[in-house]
Amino acid sequence: MGRFRGRSSTVLKPKTTQEVSEILKWCNERRIGVVPQGGNTGLVGGSVPVNDEVVLSLSNLNKVRSFDPVSGILVADAGCILQSLTDYVAPHNHIMPIDLGAKGSCHIGGNVATNAGGLRLLRYGSLHGSVLGLEVVLADGRILDQLTTLRKDNTGYDLKQLFIGAEGTLGVITAVSILTPPAPQASSNVILALPSFDNVLPLYQTVKRQLSEILSAFEFIDRTAYNLAVNHGQGRALSDEDVEGAECFVLVETSGGRREHDEEKLADLLESLLSADKPLVNTGVLSQSPSQFSSIWALREGVTEAVSKEGKAYKYDISIPLSSFKRVVDDTREHLRSKGLLHDKAVKYVLGYGHVGDGNLHLNIVADAYLPEIESALEPYVYEVVAAQRGSISAEHGIGAMKTHALPYSKSAVSIDLMKKIKNTFDPNGIMNPGKVLE
Amino acid sequence: MGRFRGRSSTVLKPKTTQEVSEILKWCNERRIGVVPQGGNTGLVGGSVPVNDEVVLSLSNLNKVRSFDPVSGILVADAGCILQSLTDYVAPHNHIMPIDLGAKGSCHIGGNVATNAGGLRLLRYGSLHGSVLGLEVVLADGRILDQLTTLRKDNTGYDLKQLFIGAEGTLGVITAVSILTPPAPQASSNVILALPSFDNVLPLYQTVKRQLSEILSAFEFIDRTAYNLAVNHGQGRALSDEDVEGAECFVLVETSGGRREHDEEKLADLLESLLSADKPLVNTGVLSQSPSQFSSIWALREGVTEAVSKEGKAYKYDISIPLSSFKRVVDDTREHLRSKGLLHDKAVKYVLGYGHVGDGNLHLNIVADAYLPEIESALEPYVYEVVAAQRGSISAEHGIGAMKTHALPYSKSAVSIDLMKKIKNTFDPNGIMNPGKVLE
Repeated sequence: MGRFRGRSSTVLKPKTTQEVSEILKWCNERRIGVVPQGGNTGLVGGSVPVNDEVVLSLSNLNKVRSFDPVSGILVADAGCILQSLTDYVAPHNHIMPIDLGAKGSCHIGGNVATNAGGLRLLRYGSLHGSVLGLEVVLADGRILDQLTTLRKDNTGYDLKQLFIGAEGTLGVITAVSILTPPAPQASSNVILALPSFDNVLPLYQTVKRQLSEILSAFEFIDRTAYNLAVNHGQGRALSDEDVEGAECFVLVETSGGRREHDEEKLADLLESLLSADKPLVNTGVLSQSPSQFSSIWALREGVTEAVSKEGKAYKYDISIPLSSFKRVVDDTREHLRSKGLLHDKAVKYVLGYGHVGDGNLHLNIVADAYLPEIESALEPYVYEVVAAQRGSISAEHGIGAMKTHALPYSKSAVSIDLMKKIKNTFDPNGIMNPGKVLE
Repeated sequence: MGRFRGRSSTVLKPKTTQEVSEILKWCNERRIGVVPQGGNTGLVGGSVPVNDEVVLSLSNLNKVRSFDPVSGILVADAGCILQSLTDYVAPHNHIMPIDLGAKGSCHIGGNVATNAGGLRLLRYGSLHGSVLGLEVVLADGRILDQLTTLRKDNTGYDLKQLFIGAEGTLGVITAVSILTPPAPQASSNVILALPSFDNVLPLYQTVKRQLSEILSAFEFIDRTAYNLAVNHGQGRALSDEDVEGAECFVLVETSGGRREHDEEKLADLLESLLSADKPLVNTGVLSQSPSQFSSIWALREGVTEAVSKEGKAYKYDISIPLSSFKRVVDDTREHLRSKGLLHDKAVKYVLGYGHVGDGNLHLNIVADAYLPEIESALEPYVYEVVAAQRGSISAEHGIGAMKTHALPYSKSAVSIDLMKKIKNTFDPNGIMNPGKVLE
C-alpha cells in the first residue's frame, strides 16, 4: 500500500537457526531492536522498522525439513514461501491449510507470526489448530524447540500458541510444523444474486445444511464492491439482467472427495433455492468449467484490485456479528456523508465484502487521496462501532505498528496487562519488534 | 481408578463468576491453595488436592449463556456437563466438537482445562482451534473476560490458549465460548481385520484418499485388546472365522451430509479393499443398522471396560509415530518378561489401541495388582522409549499430579523454564492447583 516506509539501514539475512540465535544474543546484550521480516506483505506495518532497528530477514531460511505423506505433516523453515510449500505437497495430494492473495511472496513464518486467516479458514480452521509445533529463537538467543510432529501433546502449557499472532514481538519463528489436509478431488462454485441483505443469514443456514462438510467458502460481496469489480473487468458470470435489483452477492464454493457427489449436492441446492415459494436469491450461476470456476473467484478476488485502482483505500478488517455487516457499511457511509466527506474529491466509495462463515467483514473506504479529515472521521468511529458489538478491530490483519492505540477497543485492561507481563517475561529488554502490538 | 484420594476437607461450590473471584482473592491474600474441580473424571489426578487445598467445584456454574444457531457458537458456564450441552445443541442440528467416554459427567470447563481429545479430534480438530473464547478468574481474583463469540480476532496475544491444557494452574475457567459443527446427517462404520500390523499405514492412506472429508474416525485395536473386549461380551460383528489370523483391527467411521453418498463411498472402499490383488485386510464388516453401528463402536469402547475388569491397569497415553505403535507394545511386553514380571500374579496383558489419525496410542499394562516392581520396570522405561522418538508422554490425559516428574521427557529445559515463568507471572503466590503440571 505504500503507507509504511522503514528507516532502517541494516538488513541481516541469516542462513541457519544458529545464526538467528547469535544475532539475537548480540542485539539483546546491546539493547538493539530487531524487526523480523518475512515476505513483507502485511497490511499493518508489522514488519517495518519504526526507528533504526535491525531488520532480520528470514528469506534465506527457506528449506523444507521434512514431509510425511501418511500423516500430512510438513516441517519447513520460516522463510519458505507459501506458494512453494503448496507446490511441494501437491504431488502427494495434499494442500496447505491456508491460502491468501499474497501466497506468491508471503512466508510461512510470517503467516504464523501474524496468524493469517485467508480463504480456507471456514474449512480448515485457524493456524492455532493446524500448526503443530514451532522452533523459535527467543530474545536472549535461546532456541525454543517445540518443533513436534505430533497431533496431540498434553504436557504442560502450549507455549507455541503465544507466538501465533504475536507478530514477532515475543521471539523469531525459525521453523514451522504444520498439518496439511488431503487435497480435495473436486471443487465447484456458484455465484448468487440476492434481492436483499436480509436473505444472507437464512441463505447461510440453508447452504450449511445442504452442503455440510463440502462447503469450503461462503463469501459476501455488497453491490458497491460488485460494481467496482465489474467496472474493472471482472464478473462476466452474471448478465446485466441477472444482477438487476440485486442488493448483494454470495459466492459459495464446495471442495470434496468425489466430483459427481459434490456436483449433485450443489445442483440440488441451486434448484431448491430457485424453485422455492419465496426464493432467497434472484438468480445463480453454477460454474461449468475450470475457467468459469476461476472467473467466479476472480470477481471476489478482483474487489481488492479494483479498490486499489479506484483510489486510496482505508481498509478495516473487522469481526462483527454477521447480521450487522450491511448496517456497519451503511452507517459508515452516512457518517462520512454527514461530515461532508462523501464526494469526488474525498471519499468516493464505502463498500463491504468478506468471509461470512468467519464473521469477518472487510470494510473499505475508497478516497481520492489520504486526507487527515477522512482519517479523523473514521477513527475512532469505526473502532467504537466494533467495540459496541464486542467485535474485533482486526480479524486477520493483526495490530502491527498501525493499530496499537486501538487495542483497548478489542481487549480489556486485564488482557492488556497480562499481555504486557508476558512481553516482559519473554523480552525484558524490549528488543523484539519494538512499537508493534503493544505501545 | 481409585489411585488418587484427596485430603481436603473444604469444598466450595460458587454459583457465579463473581463468587469465584471473591474466593480466589480471599485465598490469594492468605496463600491458600485452590484446586478447581469439574466432573472429576481425569486420569492423572489433576483435580485432586495433594495437601489441604480448598476444592473449588464448578458444578453450580451450569447454565448455557447463549447459542447462535446461524454461526453454531455456544457460550456456556464451565460447570455444564458435556452430554447436557450435546443435548442442548441437538435440536438445532449441531454437535459438540468433542466427545469422550466420560461425557455423562465431565464438565466443559474441565474439558478445556485439560485440553481433552477424544473421538472427534480427527474430524473437528483440537480445542485450541474450536474454543473461541474463555472467561477466566485469575489467581488474584481479577476476571479475564475473553468470552468472545468471534471466529477471528487478531488483536494481540491469544491468551486464552494458555489456559487450554493448563489444568487449572493458571486460573479458573468459568465460561467457554465454543464453535459447534453442524450435525452430520448420516454416520456409518466398518470393522476391518488385518493380517499384519504393517498394513495399517497403507490402509490409512487408502482410506483417507477414498473417504476424504467424510472420514471421522480411524481407530486401531491390537489383537490382545480385541480378545479382551470379546471375552467381556463385545465384538459380535466379526465371526471366529473372520478374525482367525488377524494381527490387529481397524474401525473406520464416516460422518457426512447425505447418507446415499456416504454409503456409496464406504461400500466402494470395502469392495476395492477386498478385491485387491494383495488385500490389505482379511475381511471387513460394514454396519447395516443403527444397532450394528453401535455394536462396532462398543468393541472399541469396550476395551477400556474389559481392561478394568481384568485387573489393575497401568495406562500410558502416548503420542508416537504411527509406524512404532506395534513395536512399542511388543517391546514393553518383552521388557516386562525379561524382568520376570509377565505371569498370572504380576502383569497379565500388555495391549495397545488408539487413535491412528492422531498418532495417539493407549498402551495398557494389565496387572493382577499394583506392585512397586511393575511400576519401577515401567518407569522411566516407557518415558525413555517415547522421548527417543520425540513423542509425547501424555497425548491427551495431561500431566496432573501424576506425571510432573516426567515432564522433561517431552519438554526441553527452555520450555520448562518458560512455563515456570508464565506460572509465576499468572500466579505469583502459587495458589492455583499446586503440585500439578509443574513440580
